[in-house]
Order: sequence, then C-alpha cells, then structure tokens
Amino acid sequence: MREGRRGRRGGGGAARRAERSAPRIEAARYITRNIPDFEILTSEALEIIEANAETVLEEIGVTFGDNPGALERWRQAGADLRGDRVHIPRGLARTLCATAPSQFTQHARNPERNVEIGGRNLVLAPVYGPPFVRDLDGVRRYATIEDFRTFVKLGYLSKWVHHSGGTLCEPTDVAVNKRHLDMLLAHMTLSDKPFMGAVTEPSRARDSVEMCEILFGEAARQAPHMTSLININSPLTFDAVMMGALEVYAEAMQACIISPFIVGGAMAPVSVAGTLTQVLAEALAGIAYSQLVRPGAPVIFGAFVTSIDMNSGAPTFGTPEASKILWGAGQLARRLGLPFRSGGGLTGAKLPDAQAGYETANTLNAALTGGVNFMLHACGWLEGGLVASFEKFVMDADQLGVLHSMAAGVDVSENGQAMDAIREVGPGGHYLGCAHTQANFKEAFWRSNLLDYRPYETWADDGAPDTQMLAANRVRKMLDEYVAPEIDPSVAEALADYVARRKAAEPDAFA
Amino acid sequence: MREGRRGRRGGGGAARRAERSAPRIEAARYITRNIPDFEILTSEALEIIEANAETVLEEIGVTFGDNPGALERWRQAGADLRGDRVHIPRGLARTLCATAPSQFTQHARNPERNVEIGGRNLVLAPVYGPPFVRDLDGVRRYATIEDFRTFVKLGYLSKWVHHSGGTLCEPTDVAVNKRHLDMLLAHMTLSDKPFMGAVTEPSRARDSVEMCEILFGEAARQAPHMTSLININSPLTFDAVMMGALEVYAEAMQACIISPFIVGGAMAPVSVAGTLTQVLAEALAGIAYSQLVRPGAPVIFGAFVTSIDMNSGAPTFGTPEASKILWGAGQLARRLGLPFRSGGGLTGAKLPDAQAGYETANTLNAALTGGVNFMLHACGWLEGGLVASFEKFVMDADQLGVLHSMAAGVDVSENGQAMDAIREVGPGGHYLGCAHTQANFKEAFWRSNLLDYRPYETWADDGAPDTQMLAANRVRKMLDEYVAPEIDPSVAEALADYVARRKAAEPDAFA
Repeated sequence: MREGRRGRRGGGGAARRAERSAPRIEAARYITRNIPDFEILTSEALEIIEANAETVLEEIGVTFGDNPGALERWRQAGADLRGDRVHIPRGLARTLCATAPSQFTQHARNPERNVEIGGRNLVLAPVYGPPFVRDLDGVRRYATIEDFRTFVKLGYLSKWVHHSGGTLCEPTDVAVNKRHLDMLLAHMTLSDKPFMGAVTEPSRARDSVEMCEILFGEAARQAPHMTSLININSPLTFDAVMMGALEVYAEAMQACIISPFIVGGAMAPVSVAGTLTQVLAEALAGIAYSQLVRPGAPVIFGAFVTSIDMNSGAPTFGTPEASKILWGAGQLARRLGLPFRSGGGLTGAKLPDAQAGYETANTLNAALTGGVNFMLHACGWLEGGLVASFEKFVMDADQLGVLHSMAAGVDVSENGQAMDAIREVGPGGHYLGCAHTQANFKEAFWRSNLLDYRPYETWADDGAPDTQMLAANRVRKMLDEYVAPEIDPSVAEALADYVARRKAAEPDAFA
Repeated sequence: MREGRRGRRGGGGAARRAERSAPRIEAARYITRNIPDFEILTSEALEIIEANAETVLEEIGVTFGDNPGALERWRQAGADLRGDRVHIPRGLARTLCATAPSQFTQHARNPERNVEIGGRNLVLAPVYGPPFVRDLDGVRRYATIEDFRTFVKLGYLSKWVHHSGGTLCEPTDVAVNKRHLDMLLAHMTLSDKPFMGAVTEPSRARDSVEMCEILFGEAARQAPHMTSLININSPLTFDAVMMGALEVYAEAMQACIISPFIVGGAMAPVSVAGTLTQVLAEALAGIAYSQLVRPGAPVIFGAFVTSIDMNSGAPTFGTPEASKILWGAGQLARRLGLPFRSGGGLTGAKLPDAQAGYETANTLNAALTGGVNFMLHACGWLEGGLVASFEKFVMDADQLGVLHSMAAGVDVSENGQAMDAIREVGPGGHYLGCAHTQANFKEAFWRSNLLDYRPYETWADDGAPDTQMLAANRVRKMLDEYVAPEIDPSVAEALADYVARRKAAEPDAFA
C-alpha cells in the first residue's frame, strides 16, 4: 500500500492548512493477483462456446439501429448487411479485437491513484446507477446530487476502493440533461481517484472529454483518463445512443467497458453455456466495433449477468448461475487477451442484512477467483441495483480488504515458512510471544476495520450493535472527518465555469 | 437429488399413519463436484511445505502423553522415542498413511442417506460443539438437550444438509458423562441421516459403537456407520483422551476426522505457509497413528484453522488467511490421497446479521472451491462457535443449495448450448416464452427457499422482514411440520433401554 495524499500542484496557505487538518488518507494500490484463476470450463467447453458465438455473429447477426455510420464501418470491414442487421463472417470480429490493448493505465489526478487495468490486476469501483438511496435513517427515497457527493467522499476515504466510479446514484433532483456535469464535477473535485464518464448521450460524452481536458490539460486525449460503461442492449442489439458515446470515447482514446447487460432467462437463454455464447458474441461485436472506430482504443470485455427468479420474474444476485457465468466469461476474455469486467457486491436484498452479506460475498469471491480486472459495483449496491446504501458502501468496502489479502497468495519465503517459530515453540507451547510472531504480527492477518471482534459481554454492554448500526456510525464518522483533496483553484474554477456555461446553454429536461 | 423417505423395515398401522401425515421430505444427495479445485499453492510451494513437515516430525517430534500403548506402537513402527516425544523419521508417517482409504461410504439407517466421503464428493454436516444457543426470542443462553433435539429435527428437514452431525450443541442440562447417550439417541431416532459418535472419553466412544450395533445390527462393525471428530491439541500434541477415542473407533472400523484445531498466531505461526506445515505434520502423525491401530481404518485429513485478531486476541472467521489455509490444506490432503475436512459456515458475528453473511459465505465459497470432502459446521454456527443459532441454521442450510448448483459445473450438451433458443429469439427479442425456456426453466436456476425476492412494495407491506425474521418464521414452520422418520419400535426400545442402563450405571458428573 502507499499512503499519504499529495496534490499535483503546490497549494497556498489555505491548502497547507487543509493539509495539516486533514486526516491521513490510507489508499491501497489496485490489486495484483499472485493467485491462479478458477477455470470452470474445460478447453473443449471453451471451444464449443467460441465456435457457437461465431455462428451467432455470422448466422443471426447483431443490430446497429439508427446508426448509418456504424453500418458503413461494418460494411467496409467486410460484414454482410441486411437492413440494420450486421452479419459478421466467422473470425472477423475476433481479428478486429486484436488491436485492443491487453492492459492499459487509467490516469488519476493524483498519479499515486493511477490504476492498471488488465493482466493480473484488479481495480475496485463502487456501485453504478441506482435511482434510490437508503439513507442513514433507514428511509428509501430518490437519490439527490448531495447523496452523490456523499458517495464520492466515502469512496475517496475508503482504503480498499481504487476508483471513484461513475453514476454512484442518479441525482434525480438535477435535470436529466445536466446531471452528468454535476457528477463529473464532484468526481473531479471531491476525490483524486480515477473516474468514469457520461454515456447517456454522445454530447454528454463530449462534455466528459472536455472537462477532462480542463482537469488534465493536453494529456487528457493522449491516454485514458476515463473508463466509461457502454451497455449492450441484450440480446444482440447495439443502440445508437450508447454506440454514439462509445464513438466519442474511442476517438478520444478514452477507455470503455463494453458490456452485455443480461438478466438470464429474459435477455439470454436459461442456461450457462447459452448465456456465455451470447455474452461472447455480443462482446466480440462491440469490441470489434470500438476498433473499427479507432484501432487501439482501450476497452474492457464486460459481462453483467444475473439470473431471474422464474417464480416471480425478479432478478436475483449472488446465485450459483451468476458465479458460473462470471468464471466462464473471465476465461473467454482471457483467451481474447482482453481486460475483463464483472459485477462486484451484488445482492437482491432490500436491507444490508444477512441476505446482503451472503449474496455480496458470493459475488466478490467469484469475481476474485474469476480473474476480474475491473469490478464495478464493488461496494454500496443494494436491492438489485435499485438502491445505493451508505451503510452497505462501507460494509462492502471493508470486505474488499479480504480480496486484497487473498490475492496476495502465500508467502513461502524463509520468513513465511516460519520453521524457526515451530522449532522455538515445540509441542504444547504457544506462539503469541515467539520471535517470529513479534516480528510479523502487525502485518500477518487482515483485520476488518468495521466488523465486531469484541467479546460478547463487551459488545452487549455497548448496546449489541448489528453490522448495519456499526456501518451507520462509520459513515457519520467518515463524513465528519472528510477534507477534500487539494486542487489548483484555477482548475476548480474553470471546471465550475464549464458546468455553469453548459447548464445555461439548454433548458432543463426531465426525461 | 433423491426424494422421499422410506424406513428400513415395514411399519405397523401407526407407522403408516405417520407416513400419510408426514410432509414430503426433500433430501439432496451429497455433492459430487463437476468443477476443478482451486490450487493456490504451486508445486514448488507444496514441496517446500511437505519437506518442512517431515523435518518437524523428525527433528521436533510430536507428543503422545499418558499413552504408553501409543508410544509402544510408535516404537515398533520405527520412531525414535524420547520420553513421550515421538520423533518420526522422514517418510515414515507418509508411508503409514498409505493404508488409509481414499474414499469410503458412511452408512445411514436410511440407505438413501448414505454418504460417500472422499474423491470428488462433498458431504455437508451441521455445527458442532457450541455451549450456548441463541433462541428464537433472541436470548443467548446455555444449550439444553431439547435444543439439541430441535437441531436434529432441523437437520433432518433441511434438503441440502446430508449429515445429522455430532454435538450440535452441548446439552448442558445433562450430566457430562451421560449427555453423549442422549445425543446419540436423538440422532438415531429423530433423523435417518448419518451421524457422528462421542469422543470425550474412550468409554463414550465404546457406548457409541454399542448403540450402533443395536441400530445397525451386525453390519455396524463391518463398515463405517459413524464419522467422529478427533481434534489434535495443536501444536503437535496428541492427548490420551482423544487418542483413546480414536483407538476405539479405528479398531471398530469406524471413521474419524483427524484434525488440527488451530487458532493461528496462538497455536501455529502467524504465517500461512508455517501454519500449513504444522497442519500437515500433525495430520500425518495422527493419521499414521490411526493406521498403526488398524491398517485400513477410514480417516479424514482435517484442518480447522482460523486466525486471531492481534489487537484483541479474539479468534476471527471468514478471513482471507483462513481461506488460503483451507485451499492449501486441501491440496496437501489430495497429494496424500486422503479425504479432506474443513469448516463450513464460520463467522465471529454475534448476530445472524450482515457480518455473519459475509464471513459465512467467504468460508463456504473457499470450502467448495478448495475441494473439501466433509464440511463440518456447514450451518448454524455463530459467535466463533460459542453459539448455535436456529435462525442461522436455516439461513446457512439454504445457502448450501448454492454449493450444490455451483458444483454441478456447466452443461455443454446440445440443450445446454441453447443455440436453438438464440436462433429463435434473435436480436432485440426476449427469452421468457421461447421453447428452450419453457422446457428448462423449472430446473434452470437455483432458487432460495428463504431469501426475499419480492418487489420492494410487497415486502414493505409485509412488515419489511430482514433475513433473521424470515429465518425465525421458517424454523417455527419446520418444527410444526416435523414428523420423525419411522423406526422399528423394538430397535427404538432397545436403544432407550441401553441409554437408561448406562445412565444408571454411574453417578452424574458435571465436569
């Protein structure tokens, strides 16, 4: 881990005062795995799925509706067009994907927070998209821009969270056509971690790029400073709005996650192998398209797949099918040599209770062993993504520490082998005071900073708090202690000016 | 899965009436994995640990105190004795372990509940050992024999639980020297699943064998009808009471788990590789000893390892170190060709809350991918094993269904590939009504029978129950519906007579 906080530019007296009064921020480096991947599919199964995905692309094809530019690009690349249906000859999509980098750096305004996406790395980013929040008073209500800012602050202060994320919640009190400006401003000024851009309109993607140019200067277009989420409209449909945003980002060399968004049984077959076939076909087509827009544009092979409760039609999370699809999709992405994204702390629970704990941990464990490189929704997700929860944000963020330690693997150095300790203690002794323990105990075991390890009596005397209550207290404490990372005041002013100008340029839209 | 319940012998009218009024009991077969194991250690690391374990056995040795018979067995086998310290020459323990079977059947009184222990199989057994229960009124109190019986009933009714377990909780209202009789009687009469024997005195192990002879007749000594838990007193100490019970069971061809019981940092070094070295040395010595008692005696390589909170000294569960040790110990056991046991739904939480959910799921996931063959504490464990919880029993038992589905792996048959469904639906369609979905939806996705999948409004109108509340309701419903599996009345009577006679033979002891 690297500690400390440091601005990119020298600050004045106010900045120095802030520096002095600010609590020391601990921020872990992104994870680099020293453990193998869990490979649920045999080579034979992988080959079947890969062959089937090529059949889907060639025989069934994918649609790029309302997007003549995309159709023209596909035509020139050699695809067979029938209306807006693109039939991609076997092998073409895979060949086009080869120009996408297998790993790239996303830059943050604090270079110590840069993240490496791909390879053996795992970058953790918070919840994305909920229209509701569950607040500290237990009230479930529409999210506001103030809630959004609170989540940015919590992410900034969370040691194991590497990325500030994107639409942490929908700021429903800001016009639909303007909220991306306020969200970006919050990410850029209230945190120094990397973040995501807007995707709900190509024009909003352009705003994102322009705001990055203010924040990062000339470097903005030379390397990835945003990683944005492009969902595919499964099955097999690429809508013009999302593709328009992808085009903006790819042309500006900004990174995109290209991600089937699948509720299994509704948007894909009710089988793991069938769903994986569709995931692969969709990701191949989308990533190939990104490379048609700009060869070398950085992309991530995404897979957001959940299953459905066939009794009620409700989407479900943390289920065995979701784990199997995650593991399989990871293998398919690695065989393409591409970074892989999947979901993190997913749950259908309506409260941060035991259901939330089980389902979230099921997903986090599968994502770690499944070789995920970019984990969205790593913390704060509740109620199938309808709700962002402050309490669950810090609960999950604490559990992300478990992933860091598991990923480190097993130290078999001489110190790790600890033979001297076993010799020193011998049969019937205890290790608490031995030399090896003295030298190693501080770093030996991961320790939760949230969960309750106290003896029963101490805990009962303290009011017997459950995890949710401990988390609520933690959120309050973090927000009390929050101090914004310093930023060049002229940059902050330029960003605020940009937001004000763009907001004034058009009337509010609420749909 | 196999369903239904069937007694071993024909019943009379009362039995037929019970049969008619009994709810249909669903009982899943033990798991047979169709997925690979997660191998965290490289071959090189495994070889280092194996070589170090041999060094520990030879150079440091293990103690078999107050057990001249054991020392004599070791002497004859070629060990170097110094007092009660047994130094085992390199390779000897491993050689002795070779006579232990790699897989065995544990028989139940309902043959459909027999379990295969070893190989690619996973058998799930409930919590073992807590002195306290947390009851449905939220009161934490000493456990009673009535609580014990309640847990036997819950295990009998839990579809995904394959085994009735052993000391589900300590019946503290029964004398220490007699409670094993009541516990065995409960397992034998209130359930038809396999169970564990007593280990707290060699004489109690003999009682267990004799009660099995009443229940199973001549078959009792010819094959394993009990799997009992022999803990090693880590570090490197084999106490005479536990070894005495092991001797009784091995001689009677009954199975034993031979298990280091380690709170890392106290009973083993504060490092994963050091702890694994000690685990392997202890398991090798214990299993080798079982084979000295009776070559071919069925045994399981156990590893109960948790870590310690170095701030408070409290044991912790569901931590990354515990997962790494579980994964590594599984590899070591497989290289010995022996069945492997580790813990299941472990948590330090004092309530069945989110902490319990996270920590339990962390452990369950590691145990599934780590190749565990016999999972003790798979459901009902709370507060670091001090408490058995009725609510958590059914919460965990529900999550065990997740393991069954994950273990099934991925179906890549033609039906699993679902190409016809993808062709039928095409871009932009939905799969809810297609032929493949119609044919497969009932079995396609695992479905919790406990967790809440309802829409927010429905759930809120129903009082917004959390998981604990849902579980409490489920426990009440199960106990309402419980009907004991039929048993030959003469056998039941003979068992009750045995218990009464043995209880009358000596005064109560309470320590």
